[in-house]
Amino acid sequence: MAGNTYGTLFKLTTFGESHGKAIGGIIDGCPAGLELDFDAIQKELERRKPGQSKIVTQRKEPDTVDFLSGIFEGKTTGTPIGFEIVNTNQKSKDYSHIKDTYRPSHADYTYDQKYGTRDYRGGGRSSARETASRVVAGAIAKQLLKDIKIHSYTSSVGELEMDIPYQDLDFSKIDSNDVRCPDTAFAKAFIDRIKEIRKEGDTIGGVITCVIQNVPVGLGEPVFDKLHAELGKAMLSINAVKGFEYGSGFEGAKMKGSDHNDIFNADGSTKTNLSGGVQGGISNGMDIYFKVAFKPVATIMQKQDTIDADGNVVEMQGKGRHDPCVVPRAVPIVDAMAALVIADFMLRDKTVKL
Amino acid sequence: MAGNTYGTLFKLTTFGESHGKAIGGIIDGCPAGLELDFDAIQKELERRKPGQSKIVTQRKEPDTVDFLSGIFEGKTTGTPIGFEIVNTNQKSKDYSHIKDTYRPSHADYTYDQKYGTRDYRGGGRSSARETASRVVAGAIAKQLLKDIKIHSYTSSVGELEMDIPYQDLDFSKIDSNDVRCPDTAFAKAFIDRIKEIRKEGDTIGGVITCVIQNVPVGLGEPVFDKLHAELGKAMLSINAVKGFEYGSGFEGAKMKGSDHNDIFNADGSTKTNLSGGVQGGISNGMDIYFKVAFKPVATIMQKQDTIDADGNVVEMQGKGRHDPCVVPRAVPIVDAMAALVIADFMLRDKTVKL
Amino acid sequence: MAGNTYGTLFKLTTFGESHGKAIGGIIDGCPAGLELDFDAIQKELERRKPGQSKIVTQRKEPDTVDFLSGIFEGKTTGTPIGFEIVNTNQKSKDYSHIKDTYRPSHADYTYDQKYGTRDYRGGGRSSARETASRVVAGAIAKQLLKDIKIHSYTSSVGELEMDIPYQDLDFSKIDSNDVRCPDTAFAKAFIDRIKEIRKEGDTIGGVITCVIQNVPVGLGEPVFDKLHAELGKAMLSINAVKGFEYGSGFEGAKMKGSDHNDIFNADGSTKTNLSGGVQGGISNGMDIYFKVAFKPVATIMQKQDTIDADGNVVEMQGKGRHDPCVVPRAVPIVDAMAALVIADFMLRDKTVKL
Amino acid sequence: MAGNTYGTLFKLTTFGESHGKAIGGIIDGCPAGLELDFDAIQKELERRKPGQSKIVTQRKEPDTVDFLSGIFEGKTTGTPIGFEIVNTNQKSKDYSHIKDTYRPSHADYTYDQKYGTRDYRGGGRSSARETASRVVAGAIAKQLLKDIKIHSYTSSVGELEMDIPYQDLDFSKIDSNDVRCPDTAFAKAFIDRIKEIRKEGDTIGGVITCVIQNVPVGLGEPVFDKLHAELGKAMLSINAVKGFEYGSGFEGAKMKGSDHNDIFNADGSTKTNLSGGVQGGISNGMDIYFKVAFKPVATIMQKQDTIDADGNVVEMQGKGRHDPCVVPRAVPIVDAMAALVIADFMLRDKTVKL
Repeated sequence: MAGNTYGTLFKLTTFGESHGKAIGGIIDGCPAGLELDFDAIQKELERRKPGQSKIVTQRKEPDTVDFLSGIFEGKTTGTPIGFEIVNTNQKSKDYSHIKDTYRPSHADYTYDQKYGTRDYRGGGRSSARETASRVVAGAIAKQLLKDIKIHSYTSSVGELEMDIPYQDLDFSKIDSNDVRCPDTAFAKAFIDRIKEIRKEGDTIGGVITCVIQNVPVGLGEPVFDKLHAELGKAMLSINAVKGFEYGSGFEGAKMKGSDHNDIFNADGSTKTNLSGGVQGGISNGMDIYFKVAFKPVATIMQKQDTIDADGNVVEMQGKGRHDPCVVPRAVPIVDAMAALVIADFMLRDKTVKL
Repeated sequence: MAGNTYGTLFKLTTFGESHGKAIGGIIDGCPAGLELDFDAIQKELERRKPGQSKIVTQRKEPDTVDFLSGIFEGKTTGTPIGFEIVNTNQKSKDYSHIKDTYRPSHADYTYDQKYGTRDYRGGGRSSARETASRVVAGAIAKQLLKDIKIHSYTSSVGELEMDIPYQDLDFSKIDSNDVRCPDTAFAKAFIDRIKEIRKEGDTIGGVITCVIQNVPVGLGEPVFDKLHAELGKAMLSINAVKGFEYGSGFEGAKMKGSDHNDIFNADGSTKTNLSGGVQGGISNGMDIYFKVAFKPVATIMQKQDTIDADGNVVEMQGKGRHDPCVVPRAVPIVDAMAALVIADFMLRDKTVKL
Repeated sequence: MAGNTYGTLFKLTTFGESHGKAIGGIIDGCPAGLELDFDAIQKELERRKPGQSKIVTQRKEPDTVDFLSGIFEGKTTGTPIGFEIVNTNQKSKDYSHIKDTYRPSHADYTYDQKYGTRDYRGGGRSSARETASRVVAGAIAKQLLKDIKIHSYTSSVGELEMDIPYQDLDFSKIDSNDVRCPDTAFAKAFIDRIKEIRKEGDTIGGVITCVIQNVPVGLGEPVFDKLHAELGKAMLSINAVKGFEYGSGFEGAKMKGSDHNDIFNADGSTKTNLSGGVQGGISNGMDIYFKVAFKPVATIMQKQDTIDADGNVVEMQGKGRHDPCVVPRAVPIVDAMAALVIADFMLRDKTVKL
Repeated sequence: MAGNTYGTLFKLTTFGESHGKAIGGIIDGCPAGLELDFDAIQKELERRKPGQSKIVTQRKEPDTVDFLSGIFEGKTTGTPIGFEIVNTNQKSKDYSHIKDTYRPSHADYTYDQKYGTRDYRGGGRSSARETASRVVAGAIAKQLLKDIKIHSYTSSVGELEMDIPYQDLDFSKIDSNDVRCPDTAFAKAFIDRIKEIRKEGDTIGGVITCVIQNVPVGLGEPVFDKLHAELGKAMLSINAVKGFEYGSGFEGAKMKGSDHNDIFNADGSTKTNLSGGVQGGISNGMDIYFKVAFKPVATIMQKQDTIDADGNVVEMQGKGRHDPCVVPRAVPIVDAMAALVIADFMLRDKTVKL
């Protein structure tokens, strides 16, 4: 029943429940000699942190990472990097009402059925709190990638879609607003929509777009471990994700070949990039870009019918402090998973230089 | 640089180029004592075979699978099942014109860059011919799954989308027409569209929907190896796939939580199924359903500019016998990969009965 | 450069250097619902602990394990079990003399060459302190194995070999003396020899025998993952191990087939057991037994010539508190690794009952 | 129940029973651009082949390997190398007498118990015929290793042990005699002993020593994937192996630290090499050497009591053509597995040059 490890040579294994003593993980396979920028790591955690703005959950958690091994005199040693984030805000009392009740569209029921038991406090292992460990590992992977740049941003909230091509966006503005959208006008619209939804005691879905630049040609393995297949798996492993598309995506399925083919320039680059930077599962040096769809958060502040462990219908209403929309805090998680995927492929291929 | 294996306990490793001596694979981990229906296996290969109808490539290949091991007196023995499909239709002359030329939106360029060499005959390893090996393995996996039923079908071709919920379709009609759409009217429209495109010397994309029924509760591993994440990777590893969504998918990202939540019945089933049969990465016993987007085939019968290995711009035009739309032949491949994913999770969890 | 994980479905990943903040690990794949005996786990740690008797290193470390996740209300939940053991006795000053010097027959030189750097404090990652994490995981695995019993004991120290067949030993006496030998007379001889060696400022090797009883028939996978091959790898991965043999071992290579074959009883058991409980890589229900050879500890309290990082010859002498013989403290480590191997194979085979 | 794959990045998966249509395998991860010497591959197969001399089984099998993929114009392409060896000498009639009988010290009983069925013809999957596939893959791995040289040879047969240090042997003479011992006098004694045993209708065990030279410093991963632990697993996975020791081995367990430590020269090499070329699981640039113990072949030409599947005691006597001693034909298998281990570690570490 394992399954808590991501990667082949740059491997992250995570542990921890939302209301246990701590969450954390082990990064195995990080090359030696990497001088770590600890502020950059913590900064990524801050981007994921609860309570960071008015449009996210108001829980307060410091989310400070503590490194336990694998680093000596500020540099990686090539040995496993163990780390933990202590859970300071456990308030288990908040969750006693869901001990014997299955929240709709949460994993309470499936965990109970699969394991015969579950840590019911705050979602336990199925809580998105686990993703903080991914953000730590992703922040280290990013530092390994050097010139390769990963830019994730909110591109839609509910029915509101930003229709600006990524080439026309200024990625340096992603963090200039609470919703992490690089366009000021759309950012405002997205934030307004989320505030509106929160007032209704409801939640809403959204989409994150990710662009990876300066990827060397040759990353990815053919057949089963195609670069985009691993990116897809990595994104779909994030809580609340319902879909993944890269390059032309679902729109591409509507097109003709004569319109869809990317014609080469003399240097091997292509005039268009409907391929999304990947051909045959291998990076071709063009920008990689993809979209990730997130469902609305399942915990709402409205009354819903549900069942308890004995199958009795009961009424429940979300308590506590929850996100009205997961997307703003999911941006650094998409960044992190993208970095883990790319770092792993960099290590898997001996001909690719680090 | 490995990457030609799918699965953890039910493992498929494939080999073979489109114009080498043979393609094939090894299935490692199939339980002993499974009485194989060889006709059913061959029938799945026929569904993928070139030349099967007027809307697919007119190449003629028998695609007969030869089992070399792991089966004794008609039953699996628990040892690896080696198999091969001899390539009878090699006609390497057809491909000499692409020896030094990179076809647009094919993997010629990336293979050459990654490996410094490539078998240029017919796409070599990047050819979708490799998927015949997946179909063999998937057909065996299906027989292992018994009551679990997998139904893939064409749900859109180009801009034409079938808007009928899967619950209203008769899956027994999927193979009643050449495009593998269970609705007669849409099937006719899809076929007409493909014929039209073929006359233009062009190609077109499409979407396959897959529904998996009777899945036991509890399949899938939390965190990185979520059931839908593995399904996504498996689908994205199929040639020409650009996107994957399950349950509410990208539409779900537009919804509110109050509309999206699936309310429980007393028996643990849900009144709606926007979740797509998976909660927290674990099957909940409801139907699993997802969509897979395929781009238009890159080889078109029209003139295109492209480059050769020295960077010179040259004009090329597709020759030979190619598919105007990949979707009809991809239906059994989606079936096969879904079966491999489910079989692997069945074996990974000791508490799930075979 | 990964490599810090053992197992396929019952997986242990460890982290930590001897003088970092903590060592620890993650156990991924432990089935849910196992009620843990925490005293039994701590007791195994005590068996490995420094300072436990006069014939081991006199360092004082409490070696208290702290569980961070995967356990709820005393039972495993099926989610990863994170744990740590804080390093309380770091005294880094003790090791400053080896910062730029390579100790003979230690891993200082190879780590420096491989990684370009090393945590020189007390051996860093190459310190046997890492094995404390294995003991924790092994103690949990043991509880999973229920009726399967693992008995490791010291069977030789230096040239002194205990020539008593394991069938004539009383395993309940293993912990009745400091050297962990179930025969009182040999135990005394072993202890005397170790004391003698310690007085000389020298160290000495030894052998541990392990007997595993009540193993069900059918554990192990044919070909590469044979049961005894995995046991061998697991044992050879323990610090200071130089050899592994099971059943008749190296003596078996001297024998004739007519003497070596194990003749069956009517019930499938065998009259003799030169096979060591494994046939064709699969357990046959008889006792599994094997021997593990440990070299003498490399740190001696005598002067030796060695080199520094610049290749200058320098004289060095061991300081601090080291083991004169590793065997007494290695007994619980052999137990632990054996338990991990067996537990993993129990999970890998669906037909074997837990 | 998988387990038929060896390696992480240079992966070999094998299939095939001794009396099925064919045996073979897939090598996944071999780098592109390696110009293959096919004669060298076939020559290694000849060294393992039955019928090659008077002291091995007199079965006649051509053992010709047929490559199906992964090679183009004489060079590897980086894609999986599929290969097969057709079984031409199936004579299934020879084995009908063992259909319902369990041969002593063979895997008949354990396979039947584990899988509920077995291909009883000639041992099926448990036959050492499977090792021919390893020899093919090992021969390719050897060509990848270039300057690294692997020398395996027979160092003992039964009680006869060659007491000459490997440094005093001329490895070029290994194949100058039928038993593959580089010393002429011991070779003659070994051959005489095997002939004597064969006349008795009996079999005898033996030991193979392997020396690996010119290994770069830095191969191997710390903790669980130590270089010598992987070598041990690889060797123990060969049929009939009962023990593995490297460097000082079991003798080292008798020694004192002051005698056992390898003192450094100024250049990082060591004056002695009791370590066997590995420190802390990582190669140190000195020769790697180890011994592998093989039990006597279980099939003897003498009458033995055994049982049938119903537990009845029956008398049986080996028929057909079997090896009186497995060692001469196992020499190329040890070579092959050593090459696979080293090649895999070369690929796993990005800092090691190919």
